[in-house]
Amino acid sequence: MSKAAALRAKFRDRDLTHIIGAHNPLSARLAENAGFDGIWASGFELSAAYGLPDASLITMTQHLDMARAINDAIDIPVVADIDTGFGNAVNVIHAVEQYEAAGMAAVVMEDKKFPKDTSLLADGRQELLSIEEFEGKVEAAVATRRDVDFMVIARTEALIAGHGQEEAKRRGEVYAKAGADAILVHSKQKTPDEVLEFIAGWDLDTPLVLVPTAYPQLTEADIAALGKVKLVIYGNHGIRAAVTGMEDVFKRIRTDGGIQNVDADIVPVTHVFDLQGVPDQKAREKKFLR
Amino acid sequence: MSKAAALRAKFRDRDLTHIIGAHNPLSARLAENAGFDGIWASGFELSAAYGLPDASLITMTQHLDMARAINDAIDIPVVADIDTGFGNAVNVIHAVEQYEAAGMAAVVMEDKKFPKDTSLLADGRQELLSIEEFEGKVEAAVATRRDVDFMVIARTEALIAGHGQEEAKRRGEVYAKAGADAILVHSKQKTPDEVLEFIAGWDLDTPLVLVPTAYPQLTEADIAALGKVKLVIYGNHGIRAAVTGMEDVFKRIRTDGGIQNVDADIVPVTHVFDLQGVPDQKAREKKFLR
Amino acid sequence: MSKAAALRAKFRDRDLTHIIGAHNPLSARLAENAGFDGIWASGFELSAAYGLPDASLITMTQHLDMARAINDAIDIPVVADIDTGFGNAVNVIHAVEQYEAAGMAAVVMEDKKFPKDTSLLADGRQELLSIEEFEGKVEAAVATRRDVDFMVIARTEALIAGHGQEEAKRRGEVYAKAGADAILVHSKQKTPDEVLEFIAGWDLDTPLVLVPTAYPQLTEADIAALGKVKLVIYGNHGIRAAVTGMEDVFKRIRTDGGIQNVDADIVPVTHVFDLQGVPDQKAREKKFLR
Amino acid sequence: MSKAAALRAKFRDRDLTHIIGAHNPLSARLAENAGFDGIWASGFELSAAYGLPDASLITMTQHLDMARAINDAIDIPVVADIDTGFGNAVNVIHAVEQYEAAGMAAVVMEDKKFPKDTSLLADGRQELLSIEEFEGKVEAAVATRRDVDFMVIARTEALIAGHGQEEAKRRGEVYAKAGADAILVHSKQKTPDEVLEFIAGWDLDTPLVLVPTAYPQLTEADIAALGKVKLVIYGNHGIRAAVTGMEDVFKRIRTDGGIQNVDADIVPVTHVFDLQGVPDQKAREKKFLR
Repeated sequence: MSKAAALRAKFRDRDLTHIIGAHNPLSARLAENAGFDGIWASGFELSAAYGLPDASLITMTQHLDMARAINDAIDIPVVADIDTGFGNAVNVIHAVEQYEAAGMAAVVMEDKKFPKDTSLLADGRQELLSIEEFEGKVEAAVATRRDVDFMVIARTEALIAGHGQEEAKRRGEVYAKAGADAILVHSKQKTPDEVLEFIAGWDLDTPLVLVPTAYPQLTEADIAALGKVKLVIYGNHGIRAAVTGMEDVFKRIRTDGGIQNVDADIVPVTHVFDLQGVPDQKAREKKFLR
Repeated sequence: MSKAAALRAKFRDRDLTHIIGAHNPLSARLAENAGFDGIWASGFELSAAYGLPDASLITMTQHLDMARAINDAIDIPVVADIDTGFGNAVNVIHAVEQYEAAGMAAVVMEDKKFPKDTSLLADGRQELLSIEEFEGKVEAAVATRRDVDFMVIARTEALIAGHGQEEAKRRGEVYAKAGADAILVHSKQKTPDEVLEFIAGWDLDTPLVLVPTAYPQLTEADIAALGKVKLVIYGNHGIRAAVTGMEDVFKRIRTDGGIQNVDADIVPVTHVFDLQGVPDQKAREKKFLR
Repeated sequence: MSKAAALRAKFRDRDLTHIIGAHNPLSARLAENAGFDGIWASGFELSAAYGLPDASLITMTQHLDMARAINDAIDIPVVADIDTGFGNAVNVIHAVEQYEAAGMAAVVMEDKKFPKDTSLLADGRQELLSIEEFEGKVEAAVATRRDVDFMVIARTEALIAGHGQEEAKRRGEVYAKAGADAILVHSKQKTPDEVLEFIAGWDLDTPLVLVPTAYPQLTEADIAALGKVKLVIYGNHGIRAAVTGMEDVFKRIRTDGGIQNVDADIVPVTHVFDLQGVPDQKAREKKFLR
Repeated sequence: MSKAAALRAKFRDRDLTHIIGAHNPLSARLAENAGFDGIWASGFELSAAYGLPDASLITMTQHLDMARAINDAIDIPVVADIDTGFGNAVNVIHAVEQYEAAGMAAVVMEDKKFPKDTSLLADGRQELLSIEEFEGKVEAAVATRRDVDFMVIARTEALIAGHGQEEAKRRGEVYAKAGADAILVHSKQKTPDEVLEFIAGWDLDTPLVLVPTAYPQLTEADIAALGKVKLVIYGNHGIRAAVTGMEDVFKRIRTDGGIQNVDADIVPVTHVFDLQGVPDQKAREKKFLR
């Protein structure tokens, strides 16, 4: 079974599927080991890893190469964050061809103008594409996929951009009718009220997707109980955990004037060896190296 | 002043310079913020980030691209880990041309055969190149640099490979006479005795470099007191700290069935925005976006 | 002297400088050997090399990597075609930082919307950015360069887009006043009349640049005699010559059922060896390989 | 049917399959248009395109990226030249995983030491790996493929290295028994006598592969008549034709002081538009762009 088929099956058979952002194959492997259902090849995390704002500065090449490397390193499906689709409908077709060929199970595309700005920013530029233009981009993405299991998820930023519930619903419906397999509705409010209102008003069969970064209090049990949301994406907790870990250790090394104290508080090198697949390397050497 | 000149000046003016491994621009920026003197563009860390053993599997392109991105993101100098130089003396010349053009302040090249195996592995393949062949590679690297401040650091794995003090000293001396600006002597013993013996016997003016991963108890004050070591490299504490942070958070999210509890224990998204340079982005938009 | 300074000096000291498009280091080396003053790292040629329309489909990464490889392989300056600057003014700043660091002597940026369409297409989408927005992008590019010799060339597509002489002149003047070092005025008319009229009406000191693909009858002597144009770019003759050569040889091999006849009509393998720098490789081996 | 299956079917059903080297998607598309059965993703051509000797200087990343782009642009199968496999058996496993995932139909791996030197060079370094080590590499490649149709072709350089017919035969047999799907026997003699002798003595069922660069007089009809060779590879005629075309045109532009004369002798820009897929772009815009 392909990873796309595996992800489709989860949407069909489970109450809720949970995936988490990764910025490199190692973080993806840690998520797989922890039991996540899949990986979010996050544009925000990769931008952050490059030290750049999440504002269409990293290129499709940089993101695609990392998404491919992530997918190659794990057995769970990868959902690729393709932002605005890197331009117009022709760019979207090119992108979908490349991401599907790279083994992605799904792509998520958002209805903002290129270059985008990151959604949770207090003073971000949040300009939406016309509904017609994004409808065409969704149709283009859907028409391009070769494998019917490959999912095209449309993300509306109508709430993020302050256009209100009606506009968000109208956009979600048009995108669903254009062929989107699911609708991601994003919100930066600090309570889930806004998305809960959206969900309550949603009456199509097309499933919904949430990214609860701004409203972490909403648990998976809460979301599953809503009945309409099939996927939850934890968008940036990996990179935030990595930063937290590194900032602490780096500061302590400088304070201590050496690694004598931090050494015992971080995983040993041998644990990294395991995560790198060294045991498999050694088995391969034994079998094939002469 | 170029970064290469800045690093040379530190070797000359300071008792000990301390740099730490990074695997992407973000981790490098965290190290810079913590006060490290420079960055070690580590092959081990980047291999681990790709989920691959540190065994000449990532390519020079992958490493060079990341080293360049790291260097572009920070103001402190970057010392690039070029492993064996990616082949013979002709490969070394090609590599040094590329790494210097990418803005590196120095390269470290080791005297193992290609493909290498990682040094700290209990059952690693540790095969040394002949001393003559590596001497030629050092000469090639030195002859290639355009900026006399760009440093070529030769790393001997003689102790790692179990060849003993005499061989290590002989190699260090030959490499120093071939033009190496410093000699990195590596050891995987759990106490510093082996490197301390090497240092005691070292009687050339060429400075030494240590990577105390295996013997963390040796502090910077200890090293500085030896008088002959001018650079200490913390090779993999960033990636180990990142793994430690992510493993914990990923596990808790799965246990908790949501992000409701971890959210407060990791840096907020706004802190990541700052690390991404969002304030600078906004200033640029204000000035130039119409 | 840097390559940027060398290009500036040519603008100052010569009647006319001539550069030609390349799509890889080899084609650039052939142009250098033929006596061209510099290389045009052409987006059209690279798009064509990838088999893609010149419509913002290749990424900045793909173009930057090839421009860097081209620059590394030759001693003459490279003028990089950065299309629309890959987005808004913030993208332009990021791009200029990267292209300057990669050794480019100049960039050319055009006043079309992203994603662009290629200029000479009969039915191309030719939508211009507002003059104010592009003015901001030029100011951003100029403010970003570190080396004052690095040239920012603004390209107006006003004639290509059918907006007429007045609009073209107005744009050229605004861009020049915003700091552009030269103004490229593009035309797809099959005679030079349109650009000649523009040149006649140009009364700023800022030099002009022509790309005479559509009107090949205008010679370098003709252009030099105009007195205001300092640079001529031959945009795509390399890739067209390569296609012409390969199509003929490929067809003949299939017709002949072998290479028995074509072999004598193409350069020998030993000539390619020379272009690859094999003599230099052998000298390096002799000196450093043990 | 996968491209690997299509290539296997040709080996089974045809007297002789003919493929030709490409260095980018455009040259591959020209070969497809001319009627070739497949593409040789040539390390020599790509090295030359980068202006570098074919001596393990371009990286696996550079070659893999271009091979993938080539494959994406055409419908005929691609045979990837993976040189020595980029290191030992562990590198080979990594490479085969990546090249198969990138859509290659086959790989060709040669029994020289890394870093290799190009085969046709008069004074090349031609050092063979031990037969046992290369046998292990072939077994590793065969064990790694996921699709049984994916072909592993072993290339012996025994004749190139001057080791004679017996050694060449012995190596070919060992590699065939290790699972190679075909044996490429290479020669740099200016007549086909050496390879004809090898073929005459070949008594396994494993098919043979020829690269007749040095002995172009041997036609496809001649090769097919031998009965044992199923694939002929034209290794570098595309890049040689491209160089021939560009050198002539570049020289004429400099001599003429303009493009006024060469313009009529090269394909028009509109022909390049067609090769770039512009008609398809316009159809996509009409359908999806709003």
